[in-house]
Amino acid sequence: MDLPEVPDLAVLVLPTRIVLETLDACGQKGIRHAIVVSGGFKEVGGDGPELEAQLKRTAAKYDIRFLGPNCIGVANPHHKLNTTFLPDNSKPGYIGFASQSGSFVTQMFGYLSEMNQGFSTAFSVGNEADVDIVDCMEYLGACPHTKVIGLYIEGIKRGSAFVRTAKAIVPYKPIVALYVGGSETGKRAGFSHTGALAGPDELYDGMFRQSGIIRAQSLTELFDFCWVLGGMPRPKGPRVVIQTHSGGPGASAADAVGRAGLELPTLSRETEEKLSRFVPHTGSVGNPVDVTFSKNPLDYFNGIPEALLGEKNGDMLLFYALTPAQGIRRALKFMKATEDQMTERIQKIMEAQCQALASLFNSRGKPLVCYVWRGLDEPFTKRLISEGIPTFLGPERAARALSALVHYSRSQQATDRDPSED
Amino acid sequence: MDLPEVPDLAVLVLPTRIVLETLDACGQKGIRHAIVVSGGFKEVGGDGPELEAQLKRTAAKYDIRFLGPNCIGVANPHHKLNTTFLPDNSKPGYIGFASQSGSFVTQMFGYLSEMNQGFSTAFSVGNEADVDIVDCMEYLGACPHTKVIGLYIEGIKRGSAFVRTAKAIVPYKPIVALYVGGSETGKRAGFSHTGALAGPDELYDGMFRQSGIIRAQSLTELFDFCWVLGGMPRPKGPRVVIQTHSGGPGASAADAVGRAGLELPTLSRETEEKLSRFVPHTGSVGNPVDVTFSKNPLDYFNGIPEALLGEKNGDMLLFYALTPAQGIRRALKFMKATEDQMTERIQKIMEAQCQALASLFNSRGKPLVCYVWRGLDEPFTKRLISEGIPTFLGPERAARALSALVHYSRSQQATDRDPSED
Repeated sequence: MDLPEVPDLAVLVLPTRIVLETLDACGQKGIRHAIVVSGGFKEVGGDGPELEAQLKRTAAKYDIRFLGPNCIGVANPHHKLNTTFLPDNSKPGYIGFASQSGSFVTQMFGYLSEMNQGFSTAFSVGNEADVDIVDCMEYLGACPHTKVIGLYIEGIKRGSAFVRTAKAIVPYKPIVALYVGGSETGKRAGFSHTGALAGPDELYDGMFRQSGIIRAQSLTELFDFCWVLGGMPRPKGPRVVIQTHSGGPGASAADAVGRAGLELPTLSRETEEKLSRFVPHTGSVGNPVDVTFSKNPLDYFNGIPEALLGEKNGDMLLFYALTPAQGIRRALKFMKATEDQMTERIQKIMEAQCQALASLFNSRGKPLVCYVWRGLDEPFTKRLISEGIPTFLGPERAARALSALVHYSRSQQATDRDPSED
Repeated sequence: MDLPEVPDLAVLVLPTRIVLETLDACGQKGIRHAIVVSGGFKEVGGDGPELEAQLKRTAAKYDIRFLGPNCIGVANPHHKLNTTFLPDNSKPGYIGFASQSGSFVTQMFGYLSEMNQGFSTAFSVGNEADVDIVDCMEYLGACPHTKVIGLYIEGIKRGSAFVRTAKAIVPYKPIVALYVGGSETGKRAGFSHTGALAGPDELYDGMFRQSGIIRAQSLTELFDFCWVLGGMPRPKGPRVVIQTHSGGPGASAADAVGRAGLELPTLSRETEEKLSRFVPHTGSVGNPVDVTFSKNPLDYFNGIPEALLGEKNGDMLLFYALTPAQGIRRALKFMKATEDQMTERIQKIMEAQCQALASLFNSRGKPLVCYVWRGLDEPFTKRLISEGIPTFLGPERAARALSALVHYSRSQQATDRDPSED
């Protein structure tokens, strides 16, 4: 009451018993927006639901819109707003997120940083007594920083509003959803968490399909999809060219591409001719393009992907991003280089390789995604990611992300041509 | 020819054109075991198949058993043997591996190290002109260092021998296989790699089921399964107790458990009573057990999992292994601790947490698996893994690995009771 100005926002992190009177005081002061972090409402049963109803009445009395209760609020790195209890060191990003779990906001700060990604705005919606996940989705649809929207859902209350809102957004911004309330076990757990009533899996599956929302099968997949959908040009079709220097990684990637519903085109004569300069006879100029050992370690990251991105029968490039650092080190050792010389030379080679690939990535207008098996914390992988190139552990995750991209691109093309076709 | 003794093994890494004469010279010298790393045989087409036939005839003349050609040989850290071109820094482990891709041997050295795992022996079988994947599986079945066998398969030549050999091993040692030749795209890629002819996916699926082999859907999953199958006691049934301190991670884990075909039992009165000492009223004593904020940060890693591992209705514990390091840091900061004091104190708490969980893990005779969302390179996760506790990114991978364990345990119980039932 003594504050000289009326705050834009009140964040209530208080024992349950004084939340109501505090919100009332906020209303008297003239505050019209609040985040109620406190728990102890509908989710605990007993008097909880009645207490939550009182909270809503108090807010309505003063025209207060509020998020929560039982949430951790909002993280918006673009505006340096973070009401959660953990520091957000991730960069301002393009992924908008509305989540019925607060943990999935805070746990992703560090996770997204590793992908050189960040949230545009992330909402923990809690019990959704007032502002709900549909409102958040609507906000993210209009938010200029948000290129893709992710949703973590345990149960939707306003089904038809959800579908209507999503349908209006999807033509210009992709939406990805993870729904865990559908299985018998997920349903029980979700209910005890936020008190939301989950529906059968088929119902939600249908609702997502009807809205044009892409469904993810895990949180990892949700952010894989967001990464690629938000950062990639739209492919013209489902045809994937695979570049590897090893048979097993090639066969696995080919298998993953097929299982993800994508196609593996045959390369055109023009591309084969372009490749013949780089690929020794033990390699294959089929697709996957298996380069085995290329003569110049830079070709693999420059001339070869350039030729493959130019392939008229290919819509995307799936790239096995292993640089033979240990092989180069051995070769240099053989040439009697000192340890310092080797390290410096390898760093230079890797830097040139990354920059070559990044420059193709930025200029060719076709999606390019990398896969590796070792951790994303290897220096070379880190560099690729810092250049904005999505890089996944294993070709399965990469192929599924590309498949989501093709799916979205198709639905957009269908909208452009004739909405009734989709 | 000038060597004073007859070597046990010849490793041929030579231009294709001099491989034959060199193998002949090896035979003359009395060498009876060889690894032919050189490529340029059946896999390249043209004269390749005939050259490979000549290689087999030369070997047969001298009773030489050989691995390859077109392989990278063997890595056996127990005997410090590594014929591949990359150093193997992983520890001697319990995972036996036979692979139709050499990359999947060398790429896994570092990967397995991160899991505190290693190979017992890993074979790159190449073109399998003589020793094939069935021979390797037989070896690994008898190898005392091997607790679980992994297979990477693009195509099997000796189908009935494969089934017979696997069937003989599975009752005492689990086998996990990844097959990528089944999809149309995987088949084409595999053929150009080793020249092996792949069969329809259903055929291989049936063959695996008939043999009691557990099928993995990706390389990541193959090693997830091996990690858990080789390092865990056998569960008595499919009932999973989930411990979390957060609703979303609980609901996701519950959903993943259901989708993996496992069950979520209701806790017994005895366990609920034991838990009431630790769980505040905002948490739930359902399953998932949601502890939200426990009073003593050690309880979460000690008293609570102890009670849950004692649950008579539970066969396994799936554990959300997030330690609130940042929360502890904030609390300490609030108490005006210095940076050094905080770091020291947090390390002590984490160490105590890890040791408490590790001690339960080692003594309770029930499987315990952890999940997190952030990377495995976080200090706390690393410590858990160094204690031998399998820790996965996301509950989906953890649940699927537990499901593989239950599947194997069931097939063993069936064998114990009455072989005809399986």
